[in-house]
Amino acid sequence: MHPKNAWYVACTPDEFADKPLGRRICGQPLVFFRGEGGKVSALEDFCPHRGAPLSLGFVREGKLVCGYHGLAVAPDGRCAHMPAQRVRGFPSVRRVPAIERYGFVWVWPGDPALADEALVPRLVWGDNPEWAYGGGLYHIQCDYRLMVDNLMDLTHETYVHASSIGQPEIEEAAPQTRVEGDTVITSRHMHNIMPPPFWAAALRGNGLADDVPCDRWQICRFSPPSHVMIEVGVAHAGKGGYDADPQYKASSIVVDFLTPETDTSMWYFWGMARNFKPGDAALTETIRAGQARIFAEDLDMLEAQQRNLLAYPERRVLSLNIDAGGVQSRKIIERIVMAEQAMAQAVATA
Amino acid sequence: MHPKNAWYVACTPDEFADKPLGRRICGQPLVFFRGEGGKVSALEDFCPHRGAPLSLGFVREGKLVCGYHGLAVAPDGRCAHMPAQRVRGFPSVRRVPAIERYGFVWVWPGDPALADEALVPRLVWGDNPEWAYGGGLYHIQCDYRLMVDNLMDLTHETYVHASSIGQPEIEEAAPQTRVEGDTVITSRHMHNIMPPPFWAAALRGNGLADDVPCDRWQICRFSPPSHVMIEVGVAHAGKGGYDADPQYKASSIVVDFLTPETDTSMWYFWGMARNFKPGDAALTETIRAGQARIFAEDLDMLEAQQRNLLAYPERRVLSLNIDAGGVQSRKIIERIVMAEQAMAQAVATA
Amino acid sequence: MHPKNAWYVACTPDEFADKPLGRRICGQPLVFFRGEGGKVSALEDFCPHRGAPLSLGFVREGKLVCGYHGLAVAPDGRCAHMPAQRVRGFPSVRRVPAIERYGFVWVWPGDPALADEALVPRLVWGDNPEWAYGGGLYHIQCDYRLMVDNLMDLTHETYVHASSIGQPEIEEAAPQTRVEGDTVITSRHMHNIMPPPFWAAALRGNGLADDVPCDRWQICRFSPPSHVMIEVGVAHAGKGGYDADPQYKASSIVVDFLTPETDTSMWYFWGMARNFKPGDAALTETIRAGQARIFAEDLDMLEAQQRNLLAYPERRVLSLNIDAGGVQSRKIIERIVMAEQAMAQAVATA
Repeated sequence: MHPKNAWYVACTPDEFADKPLGRRICGQPLVFFRGEGGKVSALEDFCPHRGAPLSLGFVREGKLVCGYHGLAVAPDGRCAHMPAQRVRGFPSVRRVPAIERYGFVWVWPGDPALADEALVPRLVWGDNPEWAYGGGLYHIQCDYRLMVDNLMDLTHETYVHASSIGQPEIEEAAPQTRVEGDTVITSRHMHNIMPPPFWAAALRGNGLADDVPCDRWQICRFSPPSHVMIEVGVAHAGKGGYDADPQYKASSIVVDFLTPETDTSMWYFWGMARNFKPGDAALTETIRAGQARIFAEDLDMLEAQQRNLLAYPERRVLSLNIDAGGVQSRKIIERIVMAEQAMAQAVATA
Repeated sequence: MHPKNAWYVACTPDEFADKPLGRRICGQPLVFFRGEGGKVSALEDFCPHRGAPLSLGFVREGKLVCGYHGLAVAPDGRCAHMPAQRVRGFPSVRRVPAIERYGFVWVWPGDPALADEALVPRLVWGDNPEWAYGGGLYHIQCDYRLMVDNLMDLTHETYVHASSIGQPEIEEAAPQTRVEGDTVITSRHMHNIMPPPFWAAALRGNGLADDVPCDRWQICRFSPPSHVMIEVGVAHAGKGGYDADPQYKASSIVVDFLTPETDTSMWYFWGMARNFKPGDAALTETIRAGQARIFAEDLDMLEAQQRNLLAYPERRVLSLNIDAGGVQSRKIIERIVMAEQAMAQAVATA
Repeated sequence: MHPKNAWYVACTPDEFADKPLGRRICGQPLVFFRGEGGKVSALEDFCPHRGAPLSLGFVREGKLVCGYHGLAVAPDGRCAHMPAQRVRGFPSVRRVPAIERYGFVWVWPGDPALADEALVPRLVWGDNPEWAYGGGLYHIQCDYRLMVDNLMDLTHETYVHASSIGQPEIEEAAPQTRVEGDTVITSRHMHNIMPPPFWAAALRGNGLADDVPCDRWQICRFSPPSHVMIEVGVAHAGKGGYDADPQYKASSIVVDFLTPETDTSMWYFWGMARNFKPGDAALTETIRAGQARIFAEDLDMLEAQQRNLLAYPERRVLSLNIDAGGVQSRKIIERIVMAEQAMAQAVATA
C-alpha cells in the first residue's frame, strides 16, 4: 500500500560511487549507476540476456556492463553492445525515472510518463550554504507506515529515547493535528521546561545557557508519498518560543524519507538539517552520530510491532488524539493509492 | 495437538527478575511480569494501543508500562493509566491465568474459568527442605510429543548418552508399561550390573562403593498435559533394588516439564530432584551441569527426527514394546484434546 | 526437472570415511556408508522405527546402526538386528543403487531395476596412472541447469574469471555447437593469442615458454543427465593447436558433475584431470587450489541469477548463439524427462 506515481528517495550517490548499487524499491529490484555524462540512471536489475542481476556488473564508458557475459546497457535501458553479437533486436531493460538532487537519488516507481522533475519536493536546506545536513540510512523490517505513525507521534520519545530527547513533559503537552491539502501537520509546544540532554548540548553548541527553563517545540509535517519533516527546537523561556529571535534558540529540521522496500520492509533515510554553524563539519558529525544512536532505538520496537501485527492481522489498534497525525497521513496515502488504482483501471478499460 | 485446559510450566521467576519476559506458550505470545504485591501475571504480549509487544516495556508501580507510548496495564489486564489519556474505554489486555509455585510459573492457556490452582501438580520435592532441585531450560525445534516419546523410552540412553548414563544392559531389560487413569508408568529394572559413569559418581557422592555390582531402576511417569517424572537410581546388588534401604542406594527424580511453543517447537524444563545431601549447593550445581550436558545430547536427534517426519508426513513409524510408554501417553493426550474439542463445540452449539 | 534413471555423482568416499554421510540427492534424503566387505551403500535416511535420520548413527560390523535406539540396518536396507527385538517383520529401508567408481560414489535415484553399472560414464582419466585428478565440491543455491548453461557458454570467463582464465579474445571467437545423439559439443578455438595467467602458469609448469603467442581451445561436452567435460588447453601458435604434438602444449580436462539437491539447489563436483606430470602431487594441489578459487567466482552470480529468475517466473531470457550449448543440453534433458514420465504413466496405466 503505497503511491506509485511519486518521487521516493532511493539511495545516496556515495552508495554507487565505486560500483553499481542493487536495491529493491517499492518491490522492484533496481540497479543504480552513473552513466554517460555522469548522470544517474536506474534500471530494472535484470539482464535481458540470462536474467543475471546487472548490479553485479560494472560501468564502462558510461554503459552498465553485465558481469556475466558482457551485455552493455545504455543509461536509457537500451542494449548498446555485446561482444560478437548484434544487439539491435534485444529487448530493452526497463528504465525507472531517476534524478539526483539535494544529495539524494529520487526514483519514480510508477508511470514514467507522469514523472515530473518539478514534483521533487523543494528542500529549503538542500542547496543552501546557510544550512548543513548530516544523515544516514537504516534498513528496517516493517511497513513504512509504522514509521509514519512513529514520526507523527513523538510521544514515544519519552519511552524509546528516554536518555536523549525524551522527557515526561512531552506527553503532558497535547499535540494538535491539522490537515492542509495533502499535508498533515502535528505540532506540540512545551513551555518552561528544562531541556533534555540532546537539546542542552545543542544550546551549549550555540553558545547558550543550557541550565535555564526553555520552551520546546516539535512540528511534524507529513507530505506524500512518505516524507516527514520535523521542525524541532528549544528557546530560552519567555523569548517567544518557536518565534524567538535566533540568538535565544537552537533549532533544526529532522529529515525523514521513508521508502518501501516490500510490504513489510523499508529504507529509512534519516538526517538533520540546521541553519547554525553550517560550516562546522565536526559539529555536523557529532549531531549525525548522536542521531544515529537515538534513531536506532526505534528499530527493535518497530520490527517487533510489525511481527505482532502480522501475527494478529484482524486485530484493531487504538487511534487516540496523539495518533491523529499518523491516522491522517494514512488516510492521505490511501486516498492517493485509490485514485491511482481507479486511474489504472480506467486506462485498462479504455 | 495439546490440551489447553491444563497447567504448563512457562518460565522461572529469574527470567523476569529484571524486566518483563516475552515468550510464546502453546502458540500464544505472552508477557510475564511481577505486578502489585509481587504476584506474577501473564498477559497477551500485545499493547492495545498500537500493537507493540508489552514485553519490550517495563514495570512501574506494579503496572506493566508499554515501552512505546507509555500505556500502563494492570496485572489483571485492565488499562490503568496513560499520560494525558482517559483509559476507561480502552480494551483490556487478555490475561492468562498464571501462578507461581515450586519455583516455576505455571500458565493455563485454555478457558480461564476452568483454571483451578488445585490442579497444579503436587511436587513432593517442590517445597520440602529434605529435597534439593537443580535444572535448566532448552528451546527445541520439535513437537513436544517427540520428547514425551524420548522420555518414556529410555532405551535411547545406550545410544544418545553412551558416555554417561547409557549402558547395554538397559536395552536388554524389557520395560513394562501400565496405564493408571491418565497416568502412564513405564518401568525398567536391571539387576547385578556395573553402574555407568553418572551413577558411579552418584554412589561416590553418597559415600558408597562405586565398583560393585548394582541393581538399577528407571520408573517413568507421564501425566497430562506433558509432565514426565522419572525415578532413577542404583542400589548395591542384593539390597532390595528400588526398595533398598537408603544407606545402600543413590537415587533421584528426573523432572521434565514439556511446554509447546508452536506445533513444531517446545520449551523443555529439565531438572533433577534428590533427597540426599539437600543442603550441598555445590553438589546440586555439579549434578545440574552434568545433566545439562547429557540432556543436550538429545537436541540434535529430536530436531533431525522432526525434520524427517515433516518431510514424510504420510509415513508410519513402528510402535514396539519399548515405545509403549510414548504410545499410551499420546493416546491420553489425544483423548483429552478430543474431549476439549467436543466440549468447545457443545458450547458453541448451545 | 531432471532425469531419474541415471547415475549421478553423490559424494566422494572420504566424506563417509569416519561416519555415515547424510545428503539430499534429487530431492531424496539419503545416507551413505560402507557396509559389509567395504562396499558402499546408499539408503533412505529415515529409520523405520521412529523416523530418526540414520545418518546420525554409526557403522558396526558392516551394519548401519541408528543412533537413537539401535536398530541395525544391513547394506541392502533390511533390518538386521535390534536389541531385545524381533526385527523379522520390520519394513526395510529403501535402498538406492550406488556404486563406487573413479573415486566417486554414483547413485541412481530412479527405478532400481534399470540401474545398470555399465551405464556409469567411462572416464578416460578415472583409473589410468598416466592421468592425475584433483577436485572439490561446492553446494550452490541454484537449479543445476543454470550451471549447465554456465559451463556450455564459456564466454562468461572474460567477465567472471577476468583475472585467471578470462581474456577478451574468448568472446571474439564464435563458438560452434553440434549435437551428436544425447551429447552436445560446443567448441571454441582462438588463434595466435597471448595465454592468460592460468595458462601461462600451466605452460611454465610444462617447461614451455609462456610469453609467446598461442592457440587456445575449449571443447565442452554435455552428456546426460548433467555431466560436462571440457577439454581445455593452449599450444604454441602454429604447432597445430588442439592437434599439436604434446611437447608444444598444455592441456587438461575440466570435470563437472552437477547433481540436483532440490529444484533450486545443487551439488557441484568440479575438478581437473591432466595427463602430464601425473605423479606430481604438489602440482595437483596447486591446480586444485587455483581451480577452487576460480570456480568459486561463479557462485554468487549463479545464486543471484536464480533469485532473479524466481522473482520473475514469467520472464523469457535470450538464447544467443553463445547459449546454443546450454539450450541444446536442456532440450536433451527435457526429452529424457518426458520419456521417463511417459514410461511411468504407461506402467501406471498397465
